[in-house]
Amino acid sequence: MTVSAARGPGRPTDDVDRRADILAAARREFADRGFDQASVRGIARAAGVDPALVHHYFGSKQDVFVAAVQFPADALRIVQGLFDGDLAEVGSRLVRHFLGVYEHAVQREPVLALLRSAMGQESVATMMREFVTAALIGPAASHLGVPQAEARLRAELAIAQLIGVAMLRYVLKAEPLASASVDELVRRLGPVVQAHFDGTASHISHLAAP
Amino acid sequence: MTVSAARGPGRPTDDVDRRADILAAARREFADRGFDQASVRGIARAAGVDPALVHHYFGSKQDVFVAAVQFPADALRIVQGLFDGDLAEVGSRLVRHFLGVYEHAVQREPVLALLRSAMGQESVATMMREFVTAALIGPAASHLGVPQAEARLRAELAIAQLIGVAMLRYVLKAEPLASASVDELVRRLGPVVQAHFDGTASHISHLAAP
Repeated sequence: MTVSAARGPGRPTDDVDRRADILAAARREFADRGFDQASVRGIARAAGVDPALVHHYFGSKQDVFVAAVQFPADALRIVQGLFDGDLAEVGSRLVRHFLGVYEHAVQREPVLALLRSAMGQESVATMMREFVTAALIGPAASHLGVPQAEARLRAELAIAQLIGVAMLRYVLKAEPLASASVDELVRRLGPVVQAHFDGTASHISHLAAP
Repeated sequence: MTVSAARGPGRPTDDVDRRADILAAARREFADRGFDQASVRGIARAAGVDPALVHHYFGSKQDVFVAAVQFPADALRIVQGLFDGDLAEVGSRLVRHFLGVYEHAVQREPVLALLRSAMGQESVATMMREFVTAALIGPAASHLGVPQAEARLRAELAIAQLIGVAMLRYVLKAEPLASASVDELVRRLGPVVQAHFDGTASHISHLAAP
């Protein structure tokens, strides 16, 4: 009954179909052209709908990407909230929020699937790099108050620490890292991530020496 | 002429065939049983040869694994030489040697292929975790002079920083990290890796604060 009702004429099924068509077209467009070159207009054309409908359903190109590859939307909100509040705590906040996304398998799996594809296909690697740069590294770097190249390198080294932890903790499940508490990891990694952002990582050993 | 000579009776072809048989058997054994449970005896049995021949061709179980999955042998030598010399320079040495392995595509590809498989198959992840623990993390941790669990966590966080850099630099090719010189990365990452090994990472922000 429910099924036949849902499949009858009317808007709900049309909506579902059109959303699915748009996401399928978006996945092809992003894979073929990369994130930077793909456009909402091109996605709409490939899906046979008006660009306004793509914006209506999903929002910006970045939002379409997030929906198409099932990238956790929380991962984006992390960066937006990262630089609100005490700037000396950016490192700890990033570690806590990053691990927060990965602690849930349902959010973790699409990211790992994307990373797996990126390791096998150059085109997916390009798409993911462009997206990560536009959505995560660029916005984070813009808060650092240093030239772009320096800011991006700092942000990349900070994010590299977290991606590596994700690989060892959630993919390889290396112990004791896999069982360590989030608080423990915030304690050990927060200052490292902070030092990368501050550009003080290269001075650590001098400062830490007795 | 060369081919028919090589295929004629005599030892060279037998050697090549038997080595290939042993490696094929090893890949099956490691995949089925994991690194810890697999044995040279079991690999020899599966290949229909004497265990002594496996040792003769390859050496230890670890050596068989390295050959079977094409893990770069250099990666193992890194850890062996890491703690020779100034202990305050372990971080810098590890960063330089680790990047040295990855700078060559011919050495990089098998590791990335293995990592890709590990992300898709639980059994490969288990095999790789057990091998990395036995061959890299365990030996490194044993030099730190602190309890095993603490030492392993430190080693894992240090290696996580490097694995993340490898992902962003060699797989996603994020700029400016992908084009940064090895010297620049040694300068920025050496002290971080050192701080993880020293267990001082959690104090960095206090020390670095003006």
